[in-house]
Amino acid sequence: MNHDDKGAPHKVVVIGAGFAGLQFIHALKHPNVAITLVDRRNHHLFQPLLYQVATTVLATSEIAWPVRHLFRDRKDVETLFGEVVGIDRAGRRLLMKEGEPIGYDTLVIATGSRHAYFGNDHWEPFAPGLKRLEDATAIRRRILLSFEKAERETDPALREALLTFVIVGAGPTGVELAGMIAELAHHTLPEEFRRIDTRKARILLIEGGPRVLAAFSPSLSDYAKAALVRLGVEVLTDSRVTECSAEGVRISDTAIACHTIIWAAGVEASPAAKWLDADADRAGRVIVRTDLTLADDERIFVLGDTASVTSQGKPVPGLAPAAKQQGAYAAKVLRRRLDGRPPPPPFHYRHQGNLATIGRHAAIIEHGKLRLRGWPAWWLWGIAHIYFLIGTRSRFAVAWSWLWSYLVGVHSARLITHRKT
Amino acid sequence: MNHDDKGAPHKVVVIGAGFAGLQFIHALKHPNVAITLVDRRNHHLFQPLLYQVATTVLATSEIAWPVRHLFRDRKDVETLFGEVVGIDRAGRRLLMKEGEPIGYDTLVIATGSRHAYFGNDHWEPFAPGLKRLEDATAIRRRILLSFEKAERETDPALREALLTFVIVGAGPTGVELAGMIAELAHHTLPEEFRRIDTRKARILLIEGGPRVLAAFSPSLSDYAKAALVRLGVEVLTDSRVTECSAEGVRISDTAIACHTIIWAAGVEASPAAKWLDADADRAGRVIVRTDLTLADDERIFVLGDTASVTSQGKPVPGLAPAAKQQGAYAAKVLRRRLDGRPPPPPFHYRHQGNLATIGRHAAIIEHGKLRLRGWPAWWLWGIAHIYFLIGTRSRFAVAWSWLWSYLVGVHSARLITHRKT
Repeated sequence: MNHDDKGAPHKVVVIGAGFAGLQFIHALKHPNVAITLVDRRNHHLFQPLLYQVATTVLATSEIAWPVRHLFRDRKDVETLFGEVVGIDRAGRRLLMKEGEPIGYDTLVIATGSRHAYFGNDHWEPFAPGLKRLEDATAIRRRILLSFEKAERETDPALREALLTFVIVGAGPTGVELAGMIAELAHHTLPEEFRRIDTRKARILLIEGGPRVLAAFSPSLSDYAKAALVRLGVEVLTDSRVTECSAEGVRISDTAIACHTIIWAAGVEASPAAKWLDADADRAGRVIVRTDLTLADDERIFVLGDTASVTSQGKPVPGLAPAAKQQGAYAAKVLRRRLDGRPPPPPFHYRHQGNLATIGRHAAIIEHGKLRLRGWPAWWLWGIAHIYFLIGTRSRFAVAWSWLWSYLVGVHSARLITHRKT
Repeated sequence: MNHDDKGAPHKVVVIGAGFAGLQFIHALKHPNVAITLVDRRNHHLFQPLLYQVATTVLATSEIAWPVRHLFRDRKDVETLFGEVVGIDRAGRRLLMKEGEPIGYDTLVIATGSRHAYFGNDHWEPFAPGLKRLEDATAIRRRILLSFEKAERETDPALREALLTFVIVGAGPTGVELAGMIAELAHHTLPEEFRRIDTRKARILLIEGGPRVLAAFSPSLSDYAKAALVRLGVEVLTDSRVTECSAEGVRISDTAIACHTIIWAAGVEASPAAKWLDADADRAGRVIVRTDLTLADDERIFVLGDTASVTSQGKPVPGLAPAAKQQGAYAAKVLRRRLDGRPPPPPFHYRHQGNLATIGRHAAIIEHGKLRLRGWPAWWLWGIAHIYFLIGTRSRFAVAWSWLWSYLVGVHSARLITHRKT
C-alpha cells in the first residue's frame, strides 16, 4: 500500500521498536498519519527479562516478538527492517545502510542504549554486556561452556579459572545475573557433573560504589546483599575493575583469573546525537526540551534511553516505564499539533517504583514508602512481569517455564548454540 | 568421580548423543560398567521436529535437551563435551580435538549423518541442509529475511527472486518444509506486510524421482502431492537440480532465480568409516555384522545412521525408531558378553510405520496395511510426537505452541537472530 496514493498523509518515521517506539505508535492513532517503523531487528525485546535467557531459564522466543506481527491490524503502520546510518536533516530523510533513504515529516528516535566501557572498549570481547538477544545467547554459551571445559580440564589452576564468574556492576542486571549464576552452580548443576563440584564455583559481583542496587533505599540494599551472600555470591563493593582480558580481571592491583566476565556496569546512548549533530550529555543522550523534541527542530522527537530528559528538575531514569511514558506523551504532542490544538503541559514522569530479583526466591520492591522483600516481593515481581509481557501465548509460556523452574529446579533452555565464540 | 578407584570396571565409550546413543545407555545398566558419553554438542536433538524450528513454529529449547541433565541420576555415566578427530584402534582410545585421548574397552559409534550434495559440496552455502539446531535457526533466518528484504526491494525481478523458495528433495523433511513455508507465506504473513503480497510467494518442491514421499504407497503419495498443491506448493517430480548458486537453482536447462534454497535431497554418514579405516557402503555408512559390531573388532559397535545394517535381507532405514532399536540391541549384546552368556540372535528390525505431515492440517500414516490420511492422521502424528518428546516440560511446551499455532494461526518463534549469514 502506497500512502501517497490517498493524498499525502503526515509521514511519521519511528526508529527503534523498543518500549518507547512501540508505545508511541500505540498511542498515535490519527486519521491523517502514515507511520513507518524502522528497526535493525525484526523483533521487540522485553529487555527486563533478558538476563533470564542468559542464565538458561527462558527461551529466546518467550521474550521477543516479531514487530510486524504486533502491528498487523494497523494498516497505517508499515515496518521496515534495516539499519539507519545517518539523518539528512535538511532533506528530512533517513540514510540507510542498504536501499533508498526514507523521508519523514516527523521523526521519532528511540534507539535505546548499549553497554559502555568508559573508554575501555577493548574490554568488550572479554567482558560482553547484555542488551540484545544475541548477547544473551552468547553469555549463556560462555557460562555453560565454562562448566563443560572445567569438567575436562586437568590443570587445577585452569579449572579454577573456568569456574570463576565475574559480574561487573551491581545494578539490577548485575544482581540478577549473579543470583541466577549462583543458583545454576550451587543448585541446578551439581548432580550432573562427575569430575568437578560445581558448588565450588566462585561468583563475584564487583561494584564501584559503596552498595549494591544503589537506586533502592539502604535497608533494601543491605537485604539484597545478604540474600546474594546466602546464595553464594561474593560481593565486592567500592571495588574498581582496572583491566579485563582473556586471563581474567584486575581489581585495583589484584588479578583474578576467570573465564567468564559479564559487563553490567554502565550504558551509553545509541549514536543518535551524532546522526543529529545535536547536544548530548556525558552518556551520549540527546538533550531534548520538556516536550521531548530537539531545541532547534520540533519535527524530531527523541525518547527513552536515547534522550536526556528532566522532569520536575530531576533526570528521568532509563527504565522501561519511563520509556513508555515518553512514547505516549510524544504521541499526544504530535496529535495535538496535527489537530492545531495547543501543546500539552511539559512531560511529567511518574515513577512506578523499583523492582529487582535475587535468585529464585527473593526480590525487593520499593514504591514510594512501600518496601517489600523476600518471597512476597518475588511473587509480585513475577506477576508484574508476566502482566507486562505481550500476548497470551508468551504469558502462558513464561509462566510455565517459571513454574517448572520453581517447582522442579530445572532450567529449560540450557543450550550451547553457535560455538563461534 | 574416578571409576578406576573402585577396581577397573569395563569402560564403555559412546560417541554421539542421538537416538541410538541415548537408547544404548538407557538399556545398558550393568554393575561393572563405567560409561563415558562424548558429543560435540551439549544437547540431544529431537530431529524429527527440527523442520518446525526452521519454519518458526517451535523454539529451539522445545526440541533439545542438555544431555548431562538426562543422565544426572546415572552415576555410572559421565558426559564429556568435545570433538572426536580420530580413533586409535591399536591403543583403544579416541583422539580428541582438545585435551587428552579417551580410552575404551568397548566403543559405540552413533554419530549420525549429515546432508550430502553428491559431489557438489560447493552448493552447501547456497542450499543449506537441516541437521543441527544451528541449521534450523540459519534456515529460519534466511526465510524471514527473504520476506523482509522483499518488502524493501524496488526491483520487481529481485523481489520475485526473494519471494521464491526452493526445496530440493521430496522426502519427509522436504515435504514438511515446503508445506510449512507455504502456510507461512499464504496464511500467517499476508496481513503483516504492506508493500508485498506474501501470497504471491512461489514455493517449489523439486524431486528427482517420479513421486513425493517415495517410502509411502502410491495412493498416499498422490494424496500428499494433492495436499501440497492445495497449500500452494508447486511440485516438480522427475526433475534434477543441476546447479545451486547465489542467483538460484538450475533444473536441467531452466534457471529459477531464488534467494532461498533448502537442501533435503540426501544424507551421508558421519566420517566414522574413515576414523576406523573400515568398509563402508556408498553413503559412507560403516558395514557391520548382524550383531552391529565390526567384522574384525567385536569391541566396536556402530549404530543408527552411521551403520549399514541389514535385517531379514533388507537394509534398515535411517529412522529414529531404527536407531533406538539398534541402541537397545547393542546394549543387550554387550550385557550378555560381560556376563559370559551366549550372544542374542541377530538384530531384527521391527518397522513401526511411516509418518509425514503436510502443513498444519494434513498428514499421512502407513503402518503395515493401515493407511491413514487427513486430519485424523495429523492428530495421531501430533500425539505420537508429543509422546516421544523427553520430559513433561517439553511435552507441555510443544503442545501449547502447537495448540496456539493451530487455533490462532500465529507462529511463535519468528526471530531473526545472528545476522551473520
